[in-house]
Amino acid sequence: MPAITPLTATDEQLAAVRYNADGLVTAIAQDVHTRSVLMLAWMNAETLAMTLAEGRMVYWSRSRQEVWRKGDTSGDRQFVRDAFYDCDGDALLFLVEQEGKGACHTGEYSCFFRRFGDDA
Amino acid sequence: MPAITPLTATDEQLAAVRYNADGLVTAIAQDVHTRSVLMLAWMNAETLAMTLAEGRMVYWSRSRQEVWRKGDTSGDRQFVRDAFYDCDGDALLFLVEQEGKGACHTGEYSCFFRRFGDDA
Repeated sequence: MPAITPLTATDEQLAAVRYNADGLVTAIAQDVHTRSVLMLAWMNAETLAMTLAEGRMVYWSRSRQEVWRKGDTSGDRQFVRDAFYDCDGDALLFLVEQEGKGACHTGEYSCFFRRFGDDA
Repeated sequence: MPAITPLTATDEQLAAVRYNADGLVTAIAQDVHTRSVLMLAWMNAETLAMTLAEGRMVYWSRSRQEVWRKGDTSGDRQFVRDAFYDCDGDALLFLVEQEGKGACHTGEYSCFFRRFGDDA
């Protein structure tokens, strides 16, 4: 199993995160090795705190309205290697070590596997 | 000036994009050369069509509620080199050639220049 590396954010850093009306912020997961963008999902303050504390990506599932500890079911966990917030605090970027077959529930490595314009 | 490369998406591809209640979809811009994630912003159907047709990133500014043709003011345009939509169609990924000093209005190259945990 990849190493677990918790991150300790400062209060100031956490206060810079801006949540939307639903209490959510966008979170991008990028493969730390290949630099492929793996997926975009959402976190609330609770799952952001869990992500940093556990060193594992924990999202908020909007469809199921529940904590989504990525990989608990599939085994395809994402271990946090670096974490950033953007200039206006409403987007997060995580560099992760992707475990297993990939990030996507379809079996693809990245959720962004469909290209515009291929058939054009 | 970097080359302009319009993309012609099929009707099926465009129909796979799912917009939220405000008619918007998240759009990630990633540097095609360095693979750095530059920014996350939003598009509506109109600005997605403009982005593909013009080969330049055109966002929808939620704060100004207007078409935001990235770089028209700053000169820091983003030229599209590849474009993807994710497995459930509610996030877009663009590989871009970033012009000028970078993507961020602060003068940083990427909007994700603030790291969690540095001071911890």
